[in-house]
Amino acid sequence: MTLKSRAAVAFAAGEPLQIVEVDVAPPKAGEVLVRIVASGVCHTDAFTLSGDDPEGIFPAILGHEGGGIVEAVGEGVTSLAVGDHVIPLYTAECRECKFCKSGKTNLCQAVRATQGKGLMPDGTTRFSYQGKPIYHYMGTSTFSEYTVVPEISLAKIPKEAPLEKVCLLGCGVTTGIGAVLNTAKVEAGATVAIFGLGGIGLAAIIGATMAKAGRIIAIDINPAKFEIARSLGATDCVNPSEFDKPIQEVIVEMTDGGVDYSFECVGNVKLMRAALECCHKGWGESTIIGVAGAGQEISTRPFQLVTGRVWRGSAFGGVRGRTELPGYVDKAQRGEIPLDTFITHTMGLDEINHAFELMHEGKSIRSVIHF
Amino acid sequence: MTLKSRAAVAFAAGEPLQIVEVDVAPPKAGEVLVRIVASGVCHTDAFTLSGDDPEGIFPAILGHEGGGIVEAVGEGVTSLAVGDHVIPLYTAECRECKFCKSGKTNLCQAVRATQGKGLMPDGTTRFSYQGKPIYHYMGTSTFSEYTVVPEISLAKIPKEAPLEKVCLLGCGVTTGIGAVLNTAKVEAGATVAIFGLGGIGLAAIIGATMAKAGRIIAIDINPAKFEIARSLGATDCVNPSEFDKPIQEVIVEMTDGGVDYSFECVGNVKLMRAALECCHKGWGESTIIGVAGAGQEISTRPFQLVTGRVWRGSAFGGVRGRTELPGYVDKAQRGEIPLDTFITHTMGLDEINHAFELMHEGKSIRSVIHF
Repeated sequence: MTLKSRAAVAFAAGEPLQIVEVDVAPPKAGEVLVRIVASGVCHTDAFTLSGDDPEGIFPAILGHEGGGIVEAVGEGVTSLAVGDHVIPLYTAECRECKFCKSGKTNLCQAVRATQGKGLMPDGTTRFSYQGKPIYHYMGTSTFSEYTVVPEISLAKIPKEAPLEKVCLLGCGVTTGIGAVLNTAKVEAGATVAIFGLGGIGLAAIIGATMAKAGRIIAIDINPAKFEIARSLGATDCVNPSEFDKPIQEVIVEMTDGGVDYSFECVGNVKLMRAALECCHKGWGESTIIGVAGAGQEISTRPFQLVTGRVWRGSAFGGVRGRTELPGYVDKAQRGEIPLDTFITHTMGLDEINHAFELMHEGKSIRSVIHF
Repeated sequence: MTLKSRAAVAFAAGEPLQIVEVDVAPPKAGEVLVRIVASGVCHTDAFTLSGDDPEGIFPAILGHEGGGIVEAVGEGVTSLAVGDHVIPLYTAECRECKFCKSGKTNLCQAVRATQGKGLMPDGTTRFSYQGKPIYHYMGTSTFSEYTVVPEISLAKIPKEAPLEKVCLLGCGVTTGIGAVLNTAKVEAGATVAIFGLGGIGLAAIIGATMAKAGRIIAIDINPAKFEIARSLGATDCVNPSEFDKPIQEVIVEMTDGGVDYSFECVGNVKLMRAALECCHKGWGESTIIGVAGAGQEISTRPFQLVTGRVWRGSAFGGVRGRTELPGYVDKAQRGEIPLDTFITHTMGLDEINHAFELMHEGKSIRSVIHF
């Protein structure tokens, strides 16, 4: 039976979201109906809404950093039951595809093609408004009171965990921590540079602290971010605006040759180059986490790599959601991941456009929408 | 006592080498006088001679792929004695610097600064001609009957090994094999693409065969190279000229998504991009071995890395010369590294300019100069 659901719909690129009542069709085979309890608002939502995302599809229900409760399951769903608490995953984990079986990546491709088209795996959408289809977004569409998600795109988490906090583990916080622990595998004592102190960069600081890095250099052109960076474990804070020379030179000098690991958490291709080039000759590794604009390219002299630096990237922190996300929730419950630090604002769905404004103005780390 | 030595001197960029009798001063503390028995002629020598190498210094004695016998040792030299057989190393191994002690790289920096200036570690040169200084090259200068090399830049090898063959382990062959085994650490069963079938590319095929790679794709625009590539273990040979689409697309299609490892063995920045982009999403790793021209840059979309590809580079195959090169010589002696395949020409020092011509014309893999 079709449900009525309050949702923030992106009807067109560049326009504010509209809060309307959409129709949500029941879950089909292998699908799950989730009642969203809370959802973070992430830069990626803003990127798509702006129209700069070449893969953006409208009208759609955005949102990909949610926490919810299973309301109904479709045919054949065995790993989840009504009442289970879940975090929707924009990177599924089917455990059967070439990618999942490789043991080398979290980039499950099982529902990739349809997800990229804003559709469920059977090629249709569960959302409609006034009889016209509304597309899904990142396979999650958490800016809706009710959403439908494939079973393989849901991480089951303990019921004790507060959904209005651990929803942040659905994207930014896990991405930053996972890039440090899973992708770069930072070792104890290592020197680390983190470029950009938004939600992902701050999470990367937490990851570096967890890894017992010896020195954690936090870099941002907004010095207002330094206090929180220090509170999470940054040992040095650097503002590139205060130097006449390129930031990579500054970092190389202050670290006697460069850092062991660097992380780009902004999505700026020039900063990606700086992050690579501030790495130590012989072994420094740079991980790109930020998402660059369409068509933009990274570049460097190949000599940077031939002399031992490594350039890699990370998506969702290399975390296999169904398998590993429950462990992240446990860590948050034990206080090892201070989620409260990230939540600068909470508000109702009606105020979601204000959350986007706060983000654009650099005034929030995360706004969490409570349904 | 100063020795007279026949040497091929590069008096100026772009001019043929001149065979003259130079003066070689005796080895100072920590230095070793080596009588060169044979030396390969490598593209890097030609690159410097051409004038395109921004770090080229003239007049100099080129050559960095040699084999010789210790003729005299300077004060304090303990690891080598007169009569020892050695391969000069353009990448020293002091075992004491930060780099050597890291265990993460072969890029010893002990003599790097002076070596780059064409000088011995004390800042002077041992070569002169008609009273005027002649510079060293890559710390080796193997195009001379006698050369002086730091003790830490010499690998001691068994006397049974034929110097006129194992000299090739001083550069190209070790570089190619080491990039596969030490840098990329290719596993059994992996799919590998090798771009460029010069000496390094062919050596990389040997490395992939040693690693028991399941599929070895050899790529070159000169199909005349394919027979030898197959004889060394290539399972597929691809000529990019035969396709209308970019070579990375061709490789991705023929491998169901891309290769596990790729190697760029040319020094062409566009090929470096192709080598990265033909790697499998999620885990493919590309290693740059070729040396690009001055000022040239590599580029790609950061999405290539964010979706799990890794870009790295390799110098001298990641091989620590004094520690590991004797093992390579053993492998050659046991027939596991078919050095004869690489030696297409042998000639005396007087004919060295002909060796450069053969190389430019693509008619040789390696010419070995016999002294």
